[in-house]
Amino acid sequence: MNKKKTLYFGAGWFNEKQNKAYKEAMAALKENPTVDLENSYVPLENQYKGIRIDEHPQYLHNIEWASATYHNDLVGIKTSDVLLGVYLPQEEHVGLGMELGYPLSQGKLFFWFSHMKDYGKPIILMSWGVCDNASQISELKDFDFNKPRYNFYDGAVY
Amino acid sequence: MNKKKTLYFGAGWFNEKQNKAYKEAMAALKENPTVDLENSYVPLENQYKGIRIDEHPQYLHNIEWASATYHNDLVGIKTSDVLLGVYLPQEEHVGLGMELGYPLSQGKLFFWFSHMKDYGKPIILMSWGVCDNASQISELKDFDFNKPRYNFYDGAVY
Amino acid sequence: MNKKKTLYFGAGWFNEKQNKAYKEAMAALKENPTVDLENSYVPLENQYKGIRIDEHPQYLHNIEWASATYHNDLVGIKTSDVLLGVYLPQEEHVGLGMELGYPLSQGKLFFWFSHMKDYGKPIILMSWGVCDNASQISELKDFDFNKPRYNFYDGAVY
Amino acid sequence: MNKKKTLYFGAGWFNEKQNKAYKEAMAALKENPTVDLENSYVPLENQYKGIRIDEHPQYLHNIEWASATYHNDLVGIKTSDVLLGVYLPQEEHVGLGMELGYPLSQGKLFFWFSHMKDYGKPIILMSWGVCDNASQISELKDFDFNKPRYNFYDGAVY
Amino acid sequence: MNKKKTLYFGAGWFNEKQNKAYKEAMAALKENPTVDLENSYVPLENQYKGIRIDEHPQYLHNIEWASATYHNDLVGIKTSDVLLGVYLPQEEHVGLGMELGYPLSQGKLFFWFSHMKDYGKPIILMSWGVCDNASQISELKDFDFNKPRYNFYDGAVY
Amino acid sequence: MNKKKTLYFGAGWFNEKQNKAYKEAMAALKENPTVDLENSYVPLENQYKGIRIDEHPQYLHNIEWASATYHNDLVGIKTSDVLLGVYLPQEEHVGLGMELGYPLSQGKLFFWFSHMKDYGKPIILMSWGVCDNASQISELKDFDFNKPRYNFYDGAVY
Repeated sequence: MNKKKTLYFGAGWFNEKQNKAYKEAMAALKENPTVDLENSYVPLENQYKGIRIDEHPQYLHNIEWASATYHNDLVGIKTSDVLLGVYLPQEEHVGLGMELGYPLSQGKLFFWFSHMKDYGKPIILMSWGVCDNASQISELKDFDFNKPRYNFYDGAVY
Repeated sequence: MNKKKTLYFGAGWFNEKQNKAYKEAMAALKENPTVDLENSYVPLENQYKGIRIDEHPQYLHNIEWASATYHNDLVGIKTSDVLLGVYLPQEEHVGLGMELGYPLSQGKLFFWFSHMKDYGKPIILMSWGVCDNASQISELKDFDFNKPRYNFYDGAVY
Repeated sequence: MNKKKTLYFGAGWFNEKQNKAYKEAMAALKENPTVDLENSYVPLENQYKGIRIDEHPQYLHNIEWASATYHNDLVGIKTSDVLLGVYLPQEEHVGLGMELGYPLSQGKLFFWFSHMKDYGKPIILMSWGVCDNASQISELKDFDFNKPRYNFYDGAVY
Repeated sequence: MNKKKTLYFGAGWFNEKQNKAYKEAMAALKENPTVDLENSYVPLENQYKGIRIDEHPQYLHNIEWASATYHNDLVGIKTSDVLLGVYLPQEEHVGLGMELGYPLSQGKLFFWFSHMKDYGKPIILMSWGVCDNASQISELKDFDFNKPRYNFYDGAVY
Repeated sequence: MNKKKTLYFGAGWFNEKQNKAYKEAMAALKENPTVDLENSYVPLENQYKGIRIDEHPQYLHNIEWASATYHNDLVGIKTSDVLLGVYLPQEEHVGLGMELGYPLSQGKLFFWFSHMKDYGKPIILMSWGVCDNASQISELKDFDFNKPRYNFYDGAVY
Repeated sequence: MNKKKTLYFGAGWFNEKQNKAYKEAMAALKENPTVDLENSYVPLENQYKGIRIDEHPQYLHNIEWASATYHNDLVGIKTSDVLLGVYLPQEEHVGLGMELGYPLSQGKLFFWFSHMKDYGKPIILMSWGVCDNASQISELKDFDFNKPRYNFYDGAVY
């Protein structure tokens, strides 16, 4: 019987391109036999009391909501075996950036996956440096999370 | 005689708005008597062999350049007392994001400063959570880095 | 087949009230299908050479005993998925406090459970801040340790 | 000219005995030429908006107060060179315990000082293990914080 | 069904004595029912692009090879439950030393195993201090990695 | 007035070659105006109760001596700004190795210095990877510890 790894699913949902990549990556994870998706952490599904700010803008200044959702995301990072980022070169968002830096000193792995047509485009130095493995979303369903290995991003860095 | 703190200067230089904020923040730091700017770390001034990618695009795929510059930035983080971010709400860049996450588990402080007219605009949850103090650039020259205290960002969070 | 999580069982055994809560919590854990109790770490069962100081006070000044038992407890913390505290508001002990602070920077989860009649009583700020989830012992046997989520202590803080 | 170290002043103020030790320790620090008391962090002087819960019990359930005060204390820990505890054997409080555990994995020193008549009394194993140096308050004014060295607690451990 | 732990296999392959111990330890691990050897990390089997320097000395000055192999080893450390060292007292190598220090602050366990005839010989203080358990290779096949406990090295320290 | 940095002086004293390099490095540090040697930590000068094992071999099996000296060295690491290694390629000792790995996850800098005639010789991958700056002892007296920057070891790696 295979071991399965839990993931923190680092992906934005703030514009159409992000949403498209979000769905493709999630679909691939469902097929991956080395992923325990049931016990993984998906930020969008774990907003405090189920409240999404885009649907309930009155919570924009609510410290209780912000504090609880933030700490819940940290719980998700702490309990997951791997941090996975859906990375869109030249359209990165800063939240993913924070999720890049945190695992560096926690001894957590960080992988990211992008679309084939974006893979290779210039990315910023810090994203390059903290990443343990950079691949394309098309490879995600067959990626063996039990035997992760380091590789360089096969693209440009600035 | 005052103590002075060293800073890691986290600011982008990739478009006009970033460059403007970069200069204003740097000017304020020069006037701040609690800042040891001479021994602080400014990423743009510490690219490997003085090579800037925007001026020398042939280095975009150079592993030696990327690795050395990345590690130099880490040295800058490790040796600085405080991580300072010039933060432009809704125009954040992912490199700053990484610099947000790293100090969280290293026990480093993270502060950021934005323009008055942007201060208050919605920022992403992760930037909100890891920040120890969020102020405006106009307050930077008088900020006492010897007695930092926590405060909430007085703005919206999503 | 369910995954099961290992725990570090942080509970005092130095007075009657502590002993009562200790037994109730342990009984609940035995029934919890998401807990791997066999491979969990229980400090009282792992004193160096089986020597308990309350039964062998001649070891009170024995550096070998103290050093080995202390390091064994650290091994227990390192090897357990979750730190669980049996928390008695207003009767906390300092040993639990240390076990609160250590996981904060290690990326370990910390949960605690108290009796219903105590739940809600004022607790000290530091216990409030480091805790990822605070519940009652009556909920312990059904707590899903595979899907832990953050919540606030629903009580007073000073 | 001497270097001076900043301290996080870990001492309770919740009963008479604690208050007495608090004052004695603070008086000693004022005389110690290796301590930069001006830039040190004293939790009681840094409650959010100057609100003390014992004087304003209506804040007992206020998440904003709790969150800001807690994070401010973390800022204090991060910015101080040394964590100093005023330790009352057999009357420890759990908040100090948390302040014991946190520096262990952050690479911060932890020292504590007790009264002479209490020094030597049994303390719990975890306090013993994380402490880098245990002395008496009477030695505090002459303690050289620029050359700290390890010593064992010269007392009982259980 | 038993749980199985993954290991980072810290052993040298640079002289005959190291190679002999390497093989004996590996053979013992294959028999150990608490070890998931398939998903463990063996540095020699994970050199960048399969290139071994002793066979391809032209890579001695190759930054790409060095950087990728080094980071791959870090991935191995991060993903393994336990760091295991094959330790030859008085013939230690510095690479193992680095692998001793890293887990200390990462909350990883470190165990080592040596030959019976060497077990007891003087070892250096730092190796003594960071080690959670020191045993002989003859005990490796029956060692229960699901219930690790601390013990002192039963030998000399200098 | 210059700032000065404190160092942890990582150098062996177990054979003639080590002793020679030890003295040369120490002499250079005395001349370096950016080094606060008075408040730095030199392991050999901080053995427990001044007892050196090579002079008092009866302490080889003394747990109190080993534990106190080990923890004192950790205090030295925690309190020093920089870890400095006197590194002898192909004659490294494992204690230095441990001192290489520990700072990696603590956010401490690690530098090392070797003799000119050894500089360039093959070193092991782990020493290469964790090092922030590798120079020759002849450069040590002029090295600016207030403005450390990353550089690659200009030599072979295996």
